[in-house]
Amino acid sequence: MKPRPRLPGEFALIERYFAPLSMGFSGAYGLLDDVAVINPGPGCELVVKTDVIVGGVDFPISAAADLVARKALRVNLSDLAAKGAVPRAYLLDLLLPDSIDEKWIAAFADGLRKDQAEYGLHLIGGDISATPGLVAIAVVALGELPIGKTIRRGGARTGDLIFVTGTIGDAALGLAAVRGTLAGISREETDFLVDRYTLPRPRVPLGPKLIGLATAAIDVSDGLVADLRHICEVSKLTAVIEASCIPLSGAAAALLTDPGILETLLTGGDDYEILFTAPPMAADTIAELSRSAATPISHIGQMHTPLDGQAKVTVLGKNGSPLVFASEGWSHF
Amino acid sequence: MKPRPRLPGEFALIERYFAPLSMGFSGAYGLLDDVAVINPGPGCELVVKTDVIVGGVDFPISAAADLVARKALRVNLSDLAAKGAVPRAYLLDLLLPDSIDEKWIAAFADGLRKDQAEYGLHLIGGDISATPGLVAIAVVALGELPIGKTIRRGGARTGDLIFVTGTIGDAALGLAAVRGTLAGISREETDFLVDRYTLPRPRVPLGPKLIGLATAAIDVSDGLVADLRHICEVSKLTAVIEASCIPLSGAAAALLTDPGILETLLTGGDDYEILFTAPPMAADTIAELSRSAATPISHIGQMHTPLDGQAKVTVLGKNGSPLVFASEGWSHF
Repeated sequence: MKPRPRLPGEFALIERYFAPLSMGFSGAYGLLDDVAVINPGPGCELVVKTDVIVGGVDFPISAAADLVARKALRVNLSDLAAKGAVPRAYLLDLLLPDSIDEKWIAAFADGLRKDQAEYGLHLIGGDISATPGLVAIAVVALGELPIGKTIRRGGARTGDLIFVTGTIGDAALGLAAVRGTLAGISREETDFLVDRYTLPRPRVPLGPKLIGLATAAIDVSDGLVADLRHICEVSKLTAVIEASCIPLSGAAAALLTDPGILETLLTGGDDYEILFTAPPMAADTIAELSRSAATPISHIGQMHTPLDGQAKVTVLGKNGSPLVFASEGWSHF
Repeated sequence: MKPRPRLPGEFALIERYFAPLSMGFSGAYGLLDDVAVINPGPGCELVVKTDVIVGGVDFPISAAADLVARKALRVNLSDLAAKGAVPRAYLLDLLLPDSIDEKWIAAFADGLRKDQAEYGLHLIGGDISATPGLVAIAVVALGELPIGKTIRRGGARTGDLIFVTGTIGDAALGLAAVRGTLAGISREETDFLVDRYTLPRPRVPLGPKLIGLATAAIDVSDGLVADLRHICEVSKLTAVIEASCIPLSGAAAALLTDPGILETLLTGGDDYEILFTAPPMAADTIAELSRSAATPISHIGQMHTPLDGQAKVTVLGKNGSPLVFASEGWSHF
């Protein structure tokens, strides 16, 4: 009836690998009940976010299970960070095909354990299901921030400067490297780029510090241009950024001699940096925050009132003329 | 690169079918932001629950999309109800294979719309992903109840009576009917059973009324015996129930002449009734609640201190001797 010789039962898996991840969060009830209880701290409200990653789509089926787990968690933490929230807990839905064995589960849980320690949150619930399809992982991240202080997409104002953390495009190049379509760089640079694709570094400590500074924010997951467009659409503004101001890693900069690379960098996605807007008078405070938080923050452009009512993103090239890309970024279909 | 001619883009789908389901819940931001904000009402706390259903596993791939949507939502609402919570909102992760077309999505969203109206909750976030596998739906339900009042699995005490709402086993027989392995009953009875399998009726209005009455509760999803065992394990007690006291529908009762049917009824699962324990002195209040809420509630057994330390469930047959089943209920593997 249910041939699955490679895995112990659902309850054994939970007890062995997942219940330990709930320890320290009383509302998780040790994963021994049907719901978890969670409440925002005094003066705070809860934010929730869910993102799914699918084997063969969002990560290679052969990827190491601990890294898959950490990516599944981190892509959600990145959204919380961009909104200014501190992560508190998460739920985990696992769809497991027959090809998954207990060793995979053990490594997966170990990846979660590491990231729980790094980001200070706990597993508080979930579901494990067999699937005739491929492995899929849905994470629901719960965080909190001061009441009414969520940094929205829609708060940007005309004249606001546009900033982005870290470097852009490394993950897209890393994916190209995984696929074997990247040439002309050193082994060290390739390893760096693949790592940037495999294990995002969400800006969890920085995000909450942007409350009161950023007028709008989003994490860069679909691609810099596409995500900036999301801010433009909801803020009903247009954005102009300068290609030469986009922060690049050394590995990415070395590849810029290929004329097609810039589009990959700006539209490839999976960066998990924070893209945000802030009024010009906040620029000094942001520069100081960048230093104190040891996080690069680059000024890349400015928001404008659209002359034609169109909320769009313009990327200016070296000679000051707009660049045209085939696609602005990733769409799930 | 991404062949999916049958569906419009992710953002178009959200705007067309899912954003309307968020209207009326301000913290959902019209599904135009990366997170949703939710807070418990005064004196309340939030509970969260997630359950996944997978095509070909939890529902037939050919099932009507609106019913798939409603089942995906309702299995989660059933958990909230059994814990005493009032549903407030939900998140939705959709994994869509190429076989899904826009008509399916439209029907799916329509099913959600109907259930939102019926149960008074809103969609506040989610994710849509392409999958090379089968359709899968993960729902995260959020509800609230008075602080500290969650009806846990572990609160049962020796001497508590065991109660269950509605009738047990109909869905298991309905699944058998769908599979074509059920004979000897009328067309009307078959339709009734299939409907019980297809569209659960979670006890949403009743659940919160059990706060202060029930010492422990769980919804019957894995099977009556298996779920009662979950209560026993966490409460560290043993349970004795009488087969003749298990509430059956007319259709199920008519099939009892087949000696194997009783096991199907008690271990088949998918009932989405509430199984709970309460002290004997609460019996009159529970009978009155059953009348006022127009919800059948049956007394089926009692909790005992285990003589051998084993938390187990004993089902007594007509002659008073224990029945032995091959399996206590559904496991996902």
